[in-house]
Amino acid sequence: MLHEKLTNPKSIAIVGASNNVHTPGGRVLKNIIEHNFKGKLIAVNPKENKIQGIKCYQNINDVPKVDVAIIAIAAKFTLETIKVLAQQKNTKGFIIFSAGFSEKDAAGKKLEQDIVEEINAVGGTLLGPNNIGLINQNYAGVFTTPIPKLDKKGVDFISGSGATAVFIIEAAMSTGLTFSSVYSVGNSAQIGVEEVLEHLDETFNKNTSSKVKLLYIESIENPQKLLKHASSLIQKGCKIAAIKAGSSSAGSRAASSHTGALANSDTAVDALFKKAGIVRCFGRNELITVASIFMYPELKGKNIAIITHAGGPAVMLTDTLSKNGLNVPEIKGQKSDELLNKLFLGSSVSNPIDFLATGNAEQLETIIDYCEHDFSEIDAMVVIFGSPGLFEVFDVYDVLHKKIQTCKKPIFPILPSVVNVKNEIDYFISKGNINFTDEVLFGNALGKVNNTPKPRLGKNSKSTINSTKIRTILDIAENGYLQPQQVKELLLAAKIPMVNEAVCTTKQTCVKTATEFGFPVVLKVVGPIHKSDVGGIVLNITSEEKLIASFNTIMKIKGATSVLIQPMKKGIELFIGAKKEGNFGHLILCGLGGIYIEVLKDIESALAPVSKNEAIEMIHNLKSHKIIEGIRNQKGVDETKFAEIIEKISNLVTIAPEIAELDLNPLLGNEKEIFAVDARIRIEKN
Amino acid sequence: MLHEKLTNPKSIAIVGASNNVHTPGGRVLKNIIEHNFKGKLIAVNPKENKIQGIKCYQNINDVPKVDVAIIAIAAKFTLETIKVLAQQKNTKGFIIFSAGFSEKDAAGKKLEQDIVEEINAVGGTLLGPNNIGLINQNYAGVFTTPIPKLDKKGVDFISGSGATAVFIIEAAMSTGLTFSSVYSVGNSAQIGVEEVLEHLDETFNKNTSSKVKLLYIESIENPQKLLKHASSLIQKGCKIAAIKAGSSSAGSRAASSHTGALANSDTAVDALFKKAGIVRCFGRNELITVASIFMYPELKGKNIAIITHAGGPAVMLTDTLSKNGLNVPEIKGQKSDELLNKLFLGSSVSNPIDFLATGNAEQLETIIDYCEHDFSEIDAMVVIFGSPGLFEVFDVYDVLHKKIQTCKKPIFPILPSVVNVKNEIDYFISKGNINFTDEVLFGNALGKVNNTPKPRLGKNSKSTINSTKIRTILDIAENGYLQPQQVKELLLAAKIPMVNEAVCTTKQTCVKTATEFGFPVVLKVVGPIHKSDVGGIVLNITSEEKLIASFNTIMKIKGATSVLIQPMKKGIELFIGAKKEGNFGHLILCGLGGIYIEVLKDIESALAPVSKNEAIEMIHNLKSHKIIEGIRNQKGVDETKFAEIIEKISNLVTIAPEIAELDLNPLLGNEKEIFAVDARIRIEKN
Repeated sequence: MLHEKLTNPKSIAIVGASNNVHTPGGRVLKNIIEHNFKGKLIAVNPKENKIQGIKCYQNINDVPKVDVAIIAIAAKFTLETIKVLAQQKNTKGFIIFSAGFSEKDAAGKKLEQDIVEEINAVGGTLLGPNNIGLINQNYAGVFTTPIPKLDKKGVDFISGSGATAVFIIEAAMSTGLTFSSVYSVGNSAQIGVEEVLEHLDETFNKNTSSKVKLLYIESIENPQKLLKHASSLIQKGCKIAAIKAGSSSAGSRAASSHTGALANSDTAVDALFKKAGIVRCFGRNELITVASIFMYPELKGKNIAIITHAGGPAVMLTDTLSKNGLNVPEIKGQKSDELLNKLFLGSSVSNPIDFLATGNAEQLETIIDYCEHDFSEIDAMVVIFGSPGLFEVFDVYDVLHKKIQTCKKPIFPILPSVVNVKNEIDYFISKGNINFTDEVLFGNALGKVNNTPKPRLGKNSKSTINSTKIRTILDIAENGYLQPQQVKELLLAAKIPMVNEAVCTTKQTCVKTATEFGFPVVLKVVGPIHKSDVGGIVLNITSEEKLIASFNTIMKIKGATSVLIQPMKKGIELFIGAKKEGNFGHLILCGLGGIYIEVLKDIESALAPVSKNEAIEMIHNLKSHKIIEGIRNQKGVDETKFAEIIEKISNLVTIAPEIAELDLNPLLGNEKEIFAVDARIRIEKN
Repeated sequence: MLHEKLTNPKSIAIVGASNNVHTPGGRVLKNIIEHNFKGKLIAVNPKENKIQGIKCYQNINDVPKVDVAIIAIAAKFTLETIKVLAQQKNTKGFIIFSAGFSEKDAAGKKLEQDIVEEINAVGGTLLGPNNIGLINQNYAGVFTTPIPKLDKKGVDFISGSGATAVFIIEAAMSTGLTFSSVYSVGNSAQIGVEEVLEHLDETFNKNTSSKVKLLYIESIENPQKLLKHASSLIQKGCKIAAIKAGSSSAGSRAASSHTGALANSDTAVDALFKKAGIVRCFGRNELITVASIFMYPELKGKNIAIITHAGGPAVMLTDTLSKNGLNVPEIKGQKSDELLNKLFLGSSVSNPIDFLATGNAEQLETIIDYCEHDFSEIDAMVVIFGSPGLFEVFDVYDVLHKKIQTCKKPIFPILPSVVNVKNEIDYFISKGNINFTDEVLFGNALGKVNNTPKPRLGKNSKSTINSTKIRTILDIAENGYLQPQQVKELLLAAKIPMVNEAVCTTKQTCVKTATEFGFPVVLKVVGPIHKSDVGGIVLNITSEEKLIASFNTIMKIKGATSVLIQPMKKGIELFIGAKKEGNFGHLILCGLGGIYIEVLKDIESALAPVSKNEAIEMIHNLKSHKIIEGIRNQKGVDETKFAEIIEKISNLVTIAPEIAELDLNPLLGNEKEIFAVDARIRIEKN
């Protein structure tokens, strides 16, 4: 938790304060003076007695006790200053703007660590170094402009990049979006995005806290902490949207197996966000648009009425909403005829509701009233109203404002005429509203919000798994791929249904086993990793003669040590995988098996632990889900059984964290049973 | 072609002119007066002698001869006025703002038709009715504001919606995008978007015409005209971006076959745009961003250097470009070390080139020079430079402006600080530059531009097709599905390779045929449409006994009239389809066959005629292309043969336009041969 003195100080010292407001130390002082700080301000600068009207101390040793120090001096002078403040001045909150620490070189990193130690020793909190600071209801401790409009019901914004925070605030200024707080974590020496979120979770008060959190993240150091507090906040009624930048470079890392190739760490980020219920954004405008949607009441259903005096944007919005799984349903019936009669001839009420270029404020009010009270199929309204520039539209925006305040159904305003009726839009925003200027950005963002699942918090049933046996096998296992027999034992202990199999090194045992299993059988090479690449799989062997021929062929493959024999099972090829993703833990993957994983990349992934319900959700989200369901006269797969195996694999890797990669590929499934046919497990102990 | 007098009049009459600039007739006069019209202005209004300083006639019969009439009076008075102007005043250009025509009711439609006839009779041109007018270098004949910055090298913009045109102009104002002309076609009574584009094509002058065209379209009335002139303009060096709104409603139409279900008219729009080389956009901001990219030099390669003083946006842009198939390659080597030495400690030149928050104009110049001259792997630069608000950045933007003017490689400016350095951005734009404010919108748009193919204009080889035979079959065919024998003859005439087959109604002929073909064989029910749904396909019949059993089973199916027998062929299931899409002509489709069409919807489509080269491009664009290529130890399909059959199907429907739907599903293909195994053809004669 952040020290309370950092967020609500009674006194603040600016070390490196200046009369020059074009320097960080000058600007931050000006910002604090101009933005409502009620406590005591202290300036520190060896060359001044008074700065911007504030008393200035030349020497840090001379300053009185102070809650927060904002430090804007060269890196090399910071440690000594902080020592004095921490040890002698009872300072608990530190914000270090200065650069030249871990982002620069090894010496900088050492210095940064020393500072953190000093601050830790007194139980203090550090934001930065190399950040822009902190803004909240109590003070504007940043050296940047603009200071956004502050409102305790505005968004809490935590940023891993100071410049990005500034650009996001700038872009938000014209929309009406307000801020409750802005935290810039800089190098995250002590406090990163996760820790600020933890703080917001632990101090959350449902009556007074903001319910919207925005994150800009470049590196997730503690995924489990992020998951815990994000899902906790969302369960308390908050909404969270985040950008995790750096998704592409992570994807370039090579990996040795299918799972490895697909499950890059960006997939892990996706899985984490999905599990937590975070809306993932990819750009500043998208983040702002999603945040703005968060500030309006939540959609209770998917049916949207579009109300407009201009056809084009309404058509584009209809397209966009439809593409995002939302509906713009036709409005019909007596009430709709009644409404039509109250509008100018040529209007349309079938949705979009188009009340023509001549439509007025009174008509807008009537339309909204019908949508609110009479059209029960409608869950929310979007009003698109601009101007060709002939006259003012204050009256229209007054109606809109009034209806947003009073209607139970959410009303989203799209006011595109940013030039023609700029004054009216500014007036509308000044009354506490948020405007969307582009219907397509809005529609995509609304779809994204609506399509983000709630936090996935199902519980895993672990009753059947033999964890003692699993630990016994793994404790003696070595790094690298497990041998077929070890794989078999491990999967048996995890209660994964497997097709019968035996490893044979001679023709004779091979024939004997096949006779036991019954023909047809399958032979697979043991030794090479990608069996099908080397022609090491022979399916549907129907006779002893063919069996011997296949055995001979397979044993000639380079690296072949023996053959694996299985009865030939029929069914749809499925895939389940697990992959350790550093500190994210394990990713669990599923899809259709065989070559379709590689080619069509139709894989769903989730962060372990995965419950059966979450597994069912994964299966439903596959593009190829219809094949699993069964289409036409082709029988499908028992989804419950499939989900249970996914859950069991999740349980297995939870007990066996040293499993780096696991592939069940393929499993064969039909409407009655699912068997793992081939499996690989790679161990990586630390 | 539009009459020259409409676009370059020597005189303009405003019918319904007014001193009240809050009316269309008042505002359009004001706009024309204020924006450079050099000719003679005439006002017409029964109640005035002078309007806004212009002489006013009370009666239309009294006005002198006039080139263009802009009409802003009630619909019911328009026809008489137009008669006088057309017949007596030698007026050739008409713009009708008034509403109340075909968009209102049948009487309005009749009135609109009568007006068009009057204007056609004198060889005149009509824009509208129900539009906002026309802006070009010669006059600002619109009743709306704002009038955009005009520049003959700016964009030519044709809009099917007046309000949308206004909102697009408004949104473009702050970016620096300029306009050469804006055409609002309203009801398109005589002249629609296609006709304006035709005009721009026919009057195109490579030295003086704008090279960028933007379209906002709600309905494509003449797809072939659009295709012809769009691809012609693009071949002359133009770039075209377009929004076709209304994509979703079209998708809801039911259809009776797979092809029908997939090939909705929005697919046809996609196919048309792809064939023409038009960049398809879905929203106003996207259209403006794409247009802005068009105004910079074209990318010569995919390697982008990102130059910034702020890490976050550069990371987000890297992600976005990567997702769109563009590269942000690592920059290494001696020259890069040299550059690094010229920047502040802590900078990075590995790309993104980050020269830190303290980076200055001089350093930016140095970096750009290295990218231009020394880093040969770099094709284009993006400079992201904002401000935390501490000081002005005029010097930085001056460098940027100078380098954009002088460098051969394109430099795209992203200046996100729309609040902190608004003055500097305005100054930068005032020098003729265009700014992008959001890196992700920019990156997606650049990707879209780069990924839009050039016009597809390959020629079809038709030498082998038997068109006489095809016409003979079709001339006697009736509406509905063709019989198997007719299908067979038609495909033979079109030189489509087909698997051997025969229709049998008795066990005896069935056994005889199977013996001729050789076992194994396949039996299929004749009668029901969706054969596999009713269990009407039996594969891999290996003996006479099994054949007879299958025959008996199939003949019991409801609607079964006979069985179709084929030798059992092996290969990858492929699909080729054709579907008539109204006035777009035929869509040709291809993909992997069988149930994967339905489930994975991995289909490529193109507008007929499709050449072999275009067919190869379609095959390459399939997500499942790797399966067709052959992966691992599975052999693929001869792509050339696949493409040839696609071309032949295109040739067939060109000769046989009454083919409403055609499915080859499946074809079986391997590395040597491809056979159509099953086919359906539906005829719809007008």
